[in-house]
Amino acid sequence: MNDLHQQLKDDPYLKFLGIEVDAAVDGHAVCSLTIAEHMLNFLGAVHGGLIFSLADAAFSAASNSDWSPSFALDVSGSFLKSVRPGDRITADAVRINTTKRTGLYRMNVRHNEDLIATFNGTVFRKV
Amino acid sequence: MNDLHQQLKDDPYLKFLGIEVDAAVDGHAVCSLTIAEHMLNFLGAVHGGLIFSLADAAFSAASNSDWSPSFALDVSGSFLKSVRPGDRITADAVRINTTKRTGLYRMNVRHNEDLIATFNGTVFRKV
Amino acid sequence: MNDLHQQLKDDPYLKFLGIEVDAAVDGHAVCSLTIAEHMLNFLGAVHGGLIFSLADAAFSAASNSDWSPSFALDVSGSFLKSVRPGDRITADAVRINTTKRTGLYRMNVRHNEDLIATFNGTVFRKV
Amino acid sequence: MNDLHQQLKDDPYLKFLGIEVDAAVDGHAVCSLTIAEHMLNFLGAVHGGLIFSLADAAFSAASNSDWSPSFALDVSGSFLKSVRPGDRITADAVRINTTKRTGLYRMNVRHNEDLIATFNGTVFRKV
Repeated sequence: MNDLHQQLKDDPYLKFLGIEVDAAVDGHAVCSLTIAEHMLNFLGAVHGGLIFSLADAAFSAASNSDWSPSFALDVSGSFLKSVRPGDRITADAVRINTTKRTGLYRMNVRHNEDLIATFNGTVFRKV
Repeated sequence: MNDLHQQLKDDPYLKFLGIEVDAAVDGHAVCSLTIAEHMLNFLGAVHGGLIFSLADAAFSAASNSDWSPSFALDVSGSFLKSVRPGDRITADAVRINTTKRTGLYRMNVRHNEDLIATFNGTVFRKV
Repeated sequence: MNDLHQQLKDDPYLKFLGIEVDAAVDGHAVCSLTIAEHMLNFLGAVHGGLIFSLADAAFSAASNSDWSPSFALDVSGSFLKSVRPGDRITADAVRINTTKRTGLYRMNVRHNEDLIATFNGTVFRKV
Repeated sequence: MNDLHQQLKDDPYLKFLGIEVDAAVDGHAVCSLTIAEHMLNFLGAVHGGLIFSLADAAFSAASNSDWSPSFALDVSGSFLKSVRPGDRITADAVRINTTKRTGLYRMNVRHNEDLIATFNGTVFRKV
């Protein structure tokens, strides 16, 4: 286990949400989470903020595996399908492009084979 | 207190994160949160997923005050400034446009007078 | 050549810009364009609006091959690399997801093997 | 008329499209355009790429009034209302935030009082 992986294991917000970092190396990362009742919104659907938080965890792990520290600048994405308590969902992040000071990553959130949400994110790489 | 406000008060994910809904009426909403240590990431910065979750809470409250149920379709935004544990941050959501079946809202997250992040979100309004 | 392909061949804005529609079928489309001097901005770079217009042409062709009429609701994307006059660039659009009333497509703009820009777009499908 | 304004007056793509730069100073810009028949798509609607090009002209003018050269990194936005040939539309760009190396701007496209489209854009400021 590399240093980044250990740091991510101790990430306070990921521990709070129950997010596990399955991989984080060379501009690529995978994070996963089991949906619980306290992640639902008042309509009984999983909160978009929770889905985004999982994608953002993979985004941060992938971009910091390339260059640390990297900080999110812009994000965008779409919510496609719903999930339910008990479902195990996974976000993978892949590097699309990097420049000296910026990086673009794409995050896909899946439940089994279904695409639940997809996001793009750009980081600024601090010197 | 209207029904929507009561439903939002009982929203499981908002309770879990400690988000308070200060207003939710006529396409406008305000939510707030005090940053705690467990909301930080491994770099010591507040997790982007937490900032987005606050904005998304205001987005959901505003759009469901217009038309319920409304579900997030697309989101985009930018992270501008950092905040620290103990800071009280606020997200307000305002309606930009609605059609019969869609609605566009803009969310600004602020700490005092500073703009921390800004997001746009489009909902689909279920019949 | 199907009806859509003929309609796209007669699209006034595509003719004005010199965009050719190479394919438009089953939620997928390819459009191409040769960069000319009048597509540059005052910094000597190709105008982002021109790059987006090519991607948007593929977006429109792909989404209308699935369901016509479809209209763009939300778009987002990133500019990655520069191109020069004389370069032939290509945008392909692929369907990511559709619902009864919406569709998500991803557009990649390339010059040879280089990724120049990438966009996501959501359409609303008119009944 | 400052140097930037003169440079924008000579911008090849803006001349090609018929876009006029009405103001470009201190992180703010206004551009306008009269819709012509050759800006329509095959559905008879104004092409999204044209609407975006007008917004992008204002984005570029505003960001380069702050710091030149500045180049677009990420964009996102929504199309809200349709316009017709003969309509005069205007895009204004305003600075939302700048850092040493990046800037966020918001562009609104209007026909009279109607909001036609709204975009956010982030630039990278070259040293």
